Amino acid sequence: MERYIPSIEAAMREALDATEAATADLFADGDLSLYGMLRYHLGWANPDFSIADSDGGKRIRPLVCVLACLASGGDAEAAIPTAAAIELLHNFTLIHDDVQDRSLTRRHRRTVWSLYGEGQAINAGDAMFAISQLPLLGSSTGSPAIPAETVIKLSRAFNETVLRIVEGQVLDLGFEDRWDINAADYQRMIRGKTATLVSFAAWAGSTIAGADEERAGKFAAFGRALGLGFQVRDDLLGIWGEPDITGKPAADDIRRRKKSLPIVMLASEAVPADRELLLSLYQEPELDDAGVETILTLLRRYEVDDRVQQEVERYHDQAREGLYAAAEPGPARDALLSLAERLATRAF
Amino acid sequence: MERYIPSIEAAMREALDATEAATADLFADGDLSLYGMLRYHLGWANPDFSIADSDGGKRIRPLVCVLACLASGGDAEAAIPTAAAIELLHNFTLIHDDVQDRSLTRRHRRTVWSLYGEGQAINAGDAMFAISQLPLLGSSTGSPAIPAETVIKLSRAFNETVLRIVEGQVLDLGFEDRWDINAADYQRMIRGKTATLVSFAAWAGSTIAGADEERAGKFAAFGRALGLGFQVRDDLLGIWGEPDITGKPAADDIRRRKKSLPIVMLASEAVPADRELLLSLYQEPELDDAGVETILTLLRRYEVDDRVQQEVERYHDQAREGLYAAAEPGPARDALLSLAERLATRAF
Repeated sequence: MERYIPSIEAAMREALDATEAATADLFADGDLSLYGMLRYHLGWANPDFSIADSDGGKRIRPLVCVLACLASGGDAEAAIPTAAAIELLHNFTLIHDDVQDRSLTRRHRRTVWSLYGEGQAINAGDAMFAISQLPLLGSSTGSPAIPAETVIKLSRAFNETVLRIVEGQVLDLGFEDRWDINAADYQRMIRGKTATLVSFAAWAGSTIAGADEERAGKFAAFGRALGLGFQVRDDLLGIWGEPDITGKPAADDIRRRKKSLPIVMLASEAVPADRELLLSLYQEPELDDAGVETILTLLRRYEVDDRVQQEVERYHDQAREGLYAAAEPGPARDALLSLAERLATRAF
Repeated sequence: MERYIPSIEAAMREALDATEAATADLFADGDLSLYGMLRYHLGWANPDFSIADSDGGKRIRPLVCVLACLASGGDAEAAIPTAAAIELLHNFTLIHDDVQDRSLTRRHRRTVWSLYGEGQAINAGDAMFAISQLPLLGSSTGSPAIPAETVIKLSRAFNETVLRIVEGQVLDLGFEDRWDINAADYQRMIRGKTATLVSFAAWAGSTIAGADEERAGKFAAFGRALGLGFQVRDDLLGIWGEPDITGKPAADDIRRRKKSLPIVMLASEAVPADRELLLSLYQEPELDDAGVETILTLLRRYEVDDRVQQEVERYHDQAREGLYAAAEPGPARDALLSLAERLATRAF
């Protein structure tokens, strides 16, 4: 399935190149390059904007879009611009997320805000968001390969998807200061923040292939379950992932005092004494090894690790069933199944 | 011309209401309301999200869009959704600007970030940006009043406009740390940051009316000159505006050490001793009355006030000539002329 990635990357680069060319004479010596920041974030440039070929992410969302198009009887080519739009959009949200979370690294590289300042990172995210719209709307010279009415429908759903993502992000930031949230609240949050875009990717691919509302809706449900499972697996690896494989310190999410699903489950289910212990440790300015070990012990006491893994499997089952309901048998469905399998069992 | 404002406001409210209704069950007690923040910013809500009717801004850009449509022989109704999109987009840029500039007040009210935090203000801006796209793309139930191909063209130009705005904002933030910029650099910056959206508004109104590229291009040129003049007049009032009329302290931009056009002109033209004096005063953590007075004296010495006013008049002349070239005589052209006149001579 990786064979579609070069076309997706090419469409992403084309969107940036065309945009930058439109204003080639604007920036002068001494000005910070807006497009340089975007290329840096996407792994195509070094911090000084010289050409690089760094890790730009797994490109899962655009692959889901292309494969859903194929699995609905469509042509992969027709889905490439939308797939590129989805990946650019995802990267807009990452740039702003890193500002909001004050994260210093992403994909083993420094974050945009940590290199160029918060204000410029807000600009970079805003620009990435605007650029992400352009492949959907067709190039400025040629006409889009899909009917105009469908283009408008996709664009509308694309922006409605952003609203769901931002709603999730509003909840996520709000939860940071609160301990009265439970697993259901957490699910409301990741449904918007993580699952909507995967759901949109599957829905859009299917819609581009000409699927009717009912079938596209089934692809959307598949994408939603896939996205939810992906996020919960991420939360699991953030605590119990192998440092050698993830490239992050052991129990990194605990060290960073992130309120991921395991912690939310623990806080909402523990007896008062254990809950108080967790809360007091999370209030420390620094969490040392002993503190991390205490929380790991608490998580084990309530079998949170097992139950979180069960959640991953539950979503994985939902995704698989959703896919069987949506797609005809064939190589594209097989590829989506293997993608779902990989995401549910991935070690990094 | 104010009679179109209620329709524009109604279209803006409809965009927010429809968006919020789509996710009515997402937010629970204790969650921050994303849509509450947006209503607050637009003047429709108090900080606690109860209903308000506060100053939401002059709505100049959407008025330019509607009047340009009328002045191109179109129907005002057809331009209303695009006008609403433009005003929502403008407000997205204001929310993020306030975060970047650490501004505490706007339109005599607290800024979004100062009330709800930076992270949530970034979210609010992102959401306002996404919502601004929706009126352009038609409501989710009815079909847009303009042909699908035109809708796509408008949406593409809308997002390209955002890129020009962000480019200007990247320059603006970059200029804060620099003293090697001159009036031409400043013009590059406000051309993107302020003039593009007014230019888009005039172009879009004319395009919706069915104007050809040439005529719509003339409206774009009119809008650009109007926008540039508007910004330079703003810079003039920021230093020499009457406190009783502007509602801001005298020489407020100097006190806040803003690098507006008068200061850029002074820095790039003054003899070394005067330049050093300006630079050293702008480096102080606090600028007292004596410091402000010193800079006002320097500005007078180089006749900066007169020359900035001449710039306003030059842009005003360009806008008027551009309008005569673009529009047929009639009440809509007269209204645009009077708007241009008002903006060039406004005292607040």
